[in-house]
Amino acid sequence: MQAMETLAHLLGSSQPVLDKGFVRLIDVMGDDTRIVQAARVSYGEGTKTVREDAALIDYLMRHRHTSPFEMVEFTFHIKAPILVIRQWFRHRTASVNEISARYSVMKDEFFLPSPAELRAQSNKNKQVGEGGLPEEAAHQAHTRIAESQQRAYQEYQALLELGVARELAREVLPVGLYSEFYWKQNLHNLLHFLRLRLDWHAQAEIRAYAEAVAHFVRQAVPLAWTSFEEHVLGGTQLSRSELEALRPLLDQDKVRLALKNAGLSTSRIQEALDKLFPQG
Amino acid sequence: MQAMETLAHLLGSSQPVLDKGFVRLIDVMGDDTRIVQAARVSYGEGTKTVREDAALIDYLMRHRHTSPFEMVEFTFHIKAPILVIRQWFRHRTASVNEISARYSVMKDEFFLPSPAELRAQSNKNKQVGEGGLPEEAAHQAHTRIAESQQRAYQEYQALLELGVARELAREVLPVGLYSEFYWKQNLHNLLHFLRLRLDWHAQAEIRAYAEAVAHFVRQAVPLAWTSFEEHVLGGTQLSRSELEALRPLLDQDKVRLALKNAGLSTSRIQEALDKLFPQG
Amino acid sequence: MQAMETLAHLLGSSQPVLDKGFVRLIDVMGDDTRIVQAARVSYGEGTKTVREDAALIDYLMRHRHTSPFEMVEFTFHIKAPILVIRQWFRHRTASVNEISARYSVMKDEFFLPSPAELRAQSNKNKQVGEGGLPEEAAHQAHTRIAESQQRAYQEYQALLELGVARELAREVLPVGLYSEFYWKQNLHNLLHFLRLRLDWHAQAEIRAYAEAVAHFVRQAVPLAWTSFEEHVLGGTQLSRSELEALRPLLDQDKVRLALKNAGLSTSRIQEALDKLFPQG
Amino acid sequence: MQAMETLAHLLGSSQPVLDKGFVRLIDVMGDDTRIVQAARVSYGEGTKTVREDAALIDYLMRHRHTSPFEMVEFTFHIKAPILVIRQWFRHRTASVNEISARYSVMKDEFFLPSPAELRAQSNKNKQVGEGGLPEEAAHQAHTRIAESQQRAYQEYQALLELGVARELAREVLPVGLYSEFYWKQNLHNLLHFLRLRLDWHAQAEIRAYAEAVAHFVRQAVPLAWTSFEEHVLGGTQLSRSELEALRPLLDQDKVRLALKNAGLSTSRIQEALDKLFPQG
Repeated sequence: MQAMETLAHLLGSSQPVLDKGFVRLIDVMGDDTRIVQAARVSYGEGTKTVREDAALIDYLMRHRHTSPFEMVEFTFHIKAPILVIRQWFRHRTASVNEISARYSVMKDEFFLPSPAELRAQSNKNKQVGEGGLPEEAAHQAHTRIAESQQRAYQEYQALLELGVARELAREVLPVGLYSEFYWKQNLHNLLHFLRLRLDWHAQAEIRAYAEAVAHFVRQAVPLAWTSFEEHVLGGTQLSRSELEALRPLLDQDKVRLALKNAGLSTSRIQEALDKLFPQG
Repeated sequence: MQAMETLAHLLGSSQPVLDKGFVRLIDVMGDDTRIVQAARVSYGEGTKTVREDAALIDYLMRHRHTSPFEMVEFTFHIKAPILVIRQWFRHRTASVNEISARYSVMKDEFFLPSPAELRAQSNKNKQVGEGGLPEEAAHQAHTRIAESQQRAYQEYQALLELGVARELAREVLPVGLYSEFYWKQNLHNLLHFLRLRLDWHAQAEIRAYAEAVAHFVRQAVPLAWTSFEEHVLGGTQLSRSELEALRPLLDQDKVRLALKNAGLSTSRIQEALDKLFPQG
Repeated sequence: MQAMETLAHLLGSSQPVLDKGFVRLIDVMGDDTRIVQAARVSYGEGTKTVREDAALIDYLMRHRHTSPFEMVEFTFHIKAPILVIRQWFRHRTASVNEISARYSVMKDEFFLPSPAELRAQSNKNKQVGEGGLPEEAAHQAHTRIAESQQRAYQEYQALLELGVARELAREVLPVGLYSEFYWKQNLHNLLHFLRLRLDWHAQAEIRAYAEAVAHFVRQAVPLAWTSFEEHVLGGTQLSRSELEALRPLLDQDKVRLALKNAGLSTSRIQEALDKLFPQG
Repeated sequence: MQAMETLAHLLGSSQPVLDKGFVRLIDVMGDDTRIVQAARVSYGEGTKTVREDAALIDYLMRHRHTSPFEMVEFTFHIKAPILVIRQWFRHRTASVNEISARYSVMKDEFFLPSPAELRAQSNKNKQVGEGGLPEEAAHQAHTRIAESQQRAYQEYQALLELGVARELAREVLPVGLYSEFYWKQNLHNLLHFLRLRLDWHAQAEIRAYAEAVAHFVRQAVPLAWTSFEEHVLGGTQLSRSELEALRPLLDQDKVRLALKNAGLSTSRIQEALDKLFPQG
């Protein structure tokens, strides 16, 4: 199968991220076919002849039948700054092995954004950085960060030379330091991670890692990825008030026609109409 | 506070479900205020003055900042048929203690639907029962189930009298048998359970239990419940294709006006427009 | 590598369990080498030369450094009676897809223990069945179970013919009915499952399944399995009082000699002495 | 009840940890009685009269019937250095809300060990710090750390003043910085955390936090704590080889007598003998 060849090609390959980081694919268990097999255990013989694989996967995705997606598992090797890792590990469903700074002397590797990559604080949104800094400020900031990292590493080395235990000497290392970890996760939880971390609210640095992860997932499970883009990444959630406000502005027949012209199947058109114009 | 008095009133109270089942509230830790406190740890001093509690909770709900909702915990005591419990325990995030049929002789209590409650197999949807049976068939079915349950329990007793171990004698007990369990879960996972089990795709029997659970949750965390109804229960998910098909049918100014007339705040109107008319 | 060949041989193969059940290995991700790689990410370059793989895995197992064992993942296809599945799914860390009795008509397959397999209720321990029944009682019980299962299935069919929805008609099916599921789990959680379900306290039926699962695990990760037998399955936990009572009965030098004669390494002998004779 | 009064007294109280940290108890749901109630749901009427609460809890603890301990839940507010938090959050079963350094400007608070608290690198064990530094080295190291922290914070402020987004400016803050979080966890997982983090292998800093957590747990569930000390904290695990080496050195009658003199119940003596001298 083509999927298997693609996969063999991907295993062990690596995507560079930020200035010194990477996402490397270690292993994958299962593919689109496994999702279908697992779903068919649930639905028994009943569905075997009716649905094609892509249609079944799309059905599972849009109706949030999530368990078949748990049947596919990915293992990555990641190198990222601690500040990114701290956000990453808030996702608690993955298995993780990270370098221990108690066992090992950490290397002199820090995330150093270029002047152009230094974002200004947004005025509108407290959470995010947004837009560049003035050129002069960007260069000053860049230089300050670079020097601060060098000094911190010198302090770390000095403390080690004084005999301070590694587990304490690391005290002075900043969260821009690179670390590495193995990360293993099922596809369902992985897609949840990607939904949150590909979003523009996510910090640009972890978004870059999410895109590198997506690079592999997209190729390993192309059918699942297509449905994920259609229903999750490219979709949106409307609230009850929003729906009620929109409804009088929409003509049911025109909506039906537009959905048909968009190429949706009869059953998906009916589902969409049921969502937009629910019946008492 | 009023919330505390409501809660004291609810603790230990019970909602009957089906013919012999119940949902009883054992304990609650935290309330709407706890959600707000936990969120403010995350956002620090920054948000303290700006948002009211209801607005903050609504913001958390619609932006899926789920961790503050994990800070509230509910414990229930449930009595339900095994077929319902089997669906229930597919939700793996809860803590559970159920009666052991290895330790205890099970009681002679079965879920016996009345003739009117016996649903016919749907032609359209393989998954669900739908509509009633003809009166004669309903009565026949009801009688058959009742007699089958009695015979099964007699067989169980006969096996126990022959000296068969309880753990084996239960072999003959049908999944309509009632069992009981303690169920403890945080609010985030509880709302996820309710989203799936209040849905019309869920089997009517577990839906009845979900409504009994909702009865307590609604009163214990009224602000969170209001946002849950607005953004989850009453809302809907549109896919990329559906959005693209709808967009040309909608006039941005009319949408803005309709949202304003629906009473949405300026920031929520802007969020809704960003969802419907995203900018390149 | 030999491990890979063994594995290829195992994939898709099946172990029969009980009268009609099985455990079939669908897929494995990772092996002993993966455990070592993941551990070495944590410990960095520091340990590379020092420890052999087997010694490192044994160290991880006895010091409960569990995360590297999470890096190996197994997928099985299981056919088992509902009463066994109900015990199985109390382990919440696995991913699961089971046949839905809402979608599919269940087959006429029940766990029917032979007369010799019918255990009597233990007098000593409320939980377990123990010892056989008198021959006459065993035959009576066997016949009763068989007839009860046939009647239950006839009732199920009769209800379906009356038009009762599948989700309700199953009411009358006993927990001895066979069902099937996909089961996916990491090695750490799998070993935890095996520790509990290979134990003599576990019901004999799920113990039989645990042994079939162990058959595959033992071959897929032979080094991890050896350490699991040494430190978990074959080991025991002593309480503080038990330790304090034993200590005066043991001579430290004789213990040291006995451990040495048992072939333990110097570092493991020291660890054992530290456990038995901790220093103020 | 006395337990309730103790608890009311504990709620909101705080234990200082390290130089600027704390562990504060926010809330507890359930107590020893809840554990017993939940266990009795499982065992049904069968056990009601036989066992006292303490004996039942001890039975559950030593036979690893863990689910009743999940019925008790604790919420803490913690202030700790990032390096400790990074170890803490490897425990994935808790719910957590931490200060976001994207939303908020972090305060000028760092963990600064006194010269006497600065441990030297162990020669024997790569993982741990052990013993003090020579006085001169300790003072030098202390001063270096203090100055390094001040400089880092000045850099952070300078970057903020240059307009760098908070989410990027934090790059230069070291992992000795204090942060705060809400931490909510059930008793079973909490005891697992304590077993690992009260152990001498754990870094001294997180051990100090574990002791502060234990201060509260011990008072909130005194019976569970007593059994935890007896069977887990004060106990040990012997491997198969260790058991086999010890067995010939032990006389079964002397062991029985010693256990009896230690005050163990008849059933616990029999359990201990079964562990030490298992029968073919």
